[in-house]
Amino acid sequence: MARPIFVHLLPALFEPAELRGGIAVVMDVLRATSTTIQALASGATCVVPCGEIDEARRKAAEVAPGTALLGGERGGLPIPGFDLGNSPGEYTPQVVRGKRIVFTTTNGTRALIRAQEARRVLIGAISNLSAIVGVLEHESSPVHLVCAGTDGRITLEDVLCAGGIARCLHLGAGDFEVADDATLLAISLFETCGRDYDRVLETLRQSRGGRNLIACGLESDIVHCAEQDRFAFVPELTRDAWEVRLPAGAKRSE
Amino acid sequence: MARPIFVHLLPALFEPAELRGGIAVVMDVLRATSTTIQALASGATCVVPCGEIDEARRKAAEVAPGTALLGGERGGLPIPGFDLGNSPGEYTPQVVRGKRIVFTTTNGTRALIRAQEARRVLIGAISNLSAIVGVLEHESSPVHLVCAGTDGRITLEDVLCAGGIARCLHLGAGDFEVADDATLLAISLFETCGRDYDRVLETLRQSRGGRNLIACGLESDIVHCAEQDRFAFVPELTRDAWEVRLPAGAKRSE
Repeated sequence: MARPIFVHLLPALFEPAELRGGIAVVMDVLRATSTTIQALASGATCVVPCGEIDEARRKAAEVAPGTALLGGERGGLPIPGFDLGNSPGEYTPQVVRGKRIVFTTTNGTRALIRAQEARRVLIGAISNLSAIVGVLEHESSPVHLVCAGTDGRITLEDVLCAGGIARCLHLGAGDFEVADDATLLAISLFETCGRDYDRVLETLRQSRGGRNLIACGLESDIVHCAEQDRFAFVPELTRDAWEVRLPAGAKRSE
Repeated sequence: MARPIFVHLLPALFEPAELRGGIAVVMDVLRATSTTIQALASGATCVVPCGEIDEARRKAAEVAPGTALLGGERGGLPIPGFDLGNSPGEYTPQVVRGKRIVFTTTNGTRALIRAQEARRVLIGAISNLSAIVGVLEHESSPVHLVCAGTDGRITLEDVLCAGGIARCLHLGAGDFEVADDATLLAISLFETCGRDYDRVLETLRQSRGGRNLIACGLESDIVHCAEQDRFAFVPELTRDAWEVRLPAGAKRSE
């Protein structure tokens, strides 16, 4: 039987129970999931997603001093007293290797919480698009591609990423079917804007999130987040510990 | 100051108060708004949108016998005891001229109710796309393009229509600005799938609503609804009487 692919353009556009038995990919391309992937690639032991700033401070204080770093943003800006913001470029091996990153961003965390009833929850971005496709092709469950959006509004870069994944699955060797019109819409966006790096970069620049980053002087983050397949691994949410980790044996290197 | 254009991919994706002071266009291309436009083109005096079947029967019984016709659908199928279904081809001059059409469809009516706080509420479809653009260009309020969707799910044909209107406004002589990423997404869809009749038809055929119509033997409805600019007028919701009417002096002819 063909496996359905659903693109959810916003977390509010599905009921959590719809994801039961499925495999979910959460994407917040500008910038939470792109930064999470970079942090793990640079050797962080795990990323702990937190919805609130106080919760993040508490979780960082629970572990041995010097083992955790606080990261995240509010309104695109660094949080006072935190070690790191939400720019992937900050998460270098020199800074994060061997550290636990306690990380708070609003939209990405909300999307993870809403997706948690899925059998597996993967962390996706343009930077690991093909790796995501590879994992999904070897699964047998329905696929739910969850766009985080921003404050309840659709974001072009997340839809582009979901469309790219959906398109690769649909055109690949596996028996997938496009489940609904939102998925067709995302595939169409990728076909128009996702086929080469320059077009992806231009799309991210014209998106609302991209324009906000440019206004904040963070255009280099867009350049980072637009590069497809920078990484060949897929982080996953471990629900018992509520941590994002690499699968055992994954290669971290770029 | 530039006038913002918002595409709302579903009625649930805006708060009714956001439309205050704006001009809204409601579209349910397959098929409620396409059929409404056809009914008025064929000489119906007005179309009265009703959310419930009982409400429609009551409203039809309130007027002089022989002056109203009951039309609409549930789940794509005609309603027992109603005079007409929801196929535009049924609404010929022979059948509807001089009649009041009491009309009930689920998604289109819900979208109208949710959009009613706008200063004006227009009825749009692919069949009057350029006429809608013409009216919006001569207004001065923010533009809200409301896709009806189906049972809370996004429908490709409504997004295509909204994208076509948004694109014409954005590229036209007026001072419009694309307000958000949902609008960019709709414009991208139209640029890929909306530029000629064959592509529009193919897009409508592959949409979920289109596939349902084909399965019901109603493919000719898709052909009707895909034809751009069949009509050069814009029906409007009159809120005091809750009727959809042509503006005074509008030409009905195809």
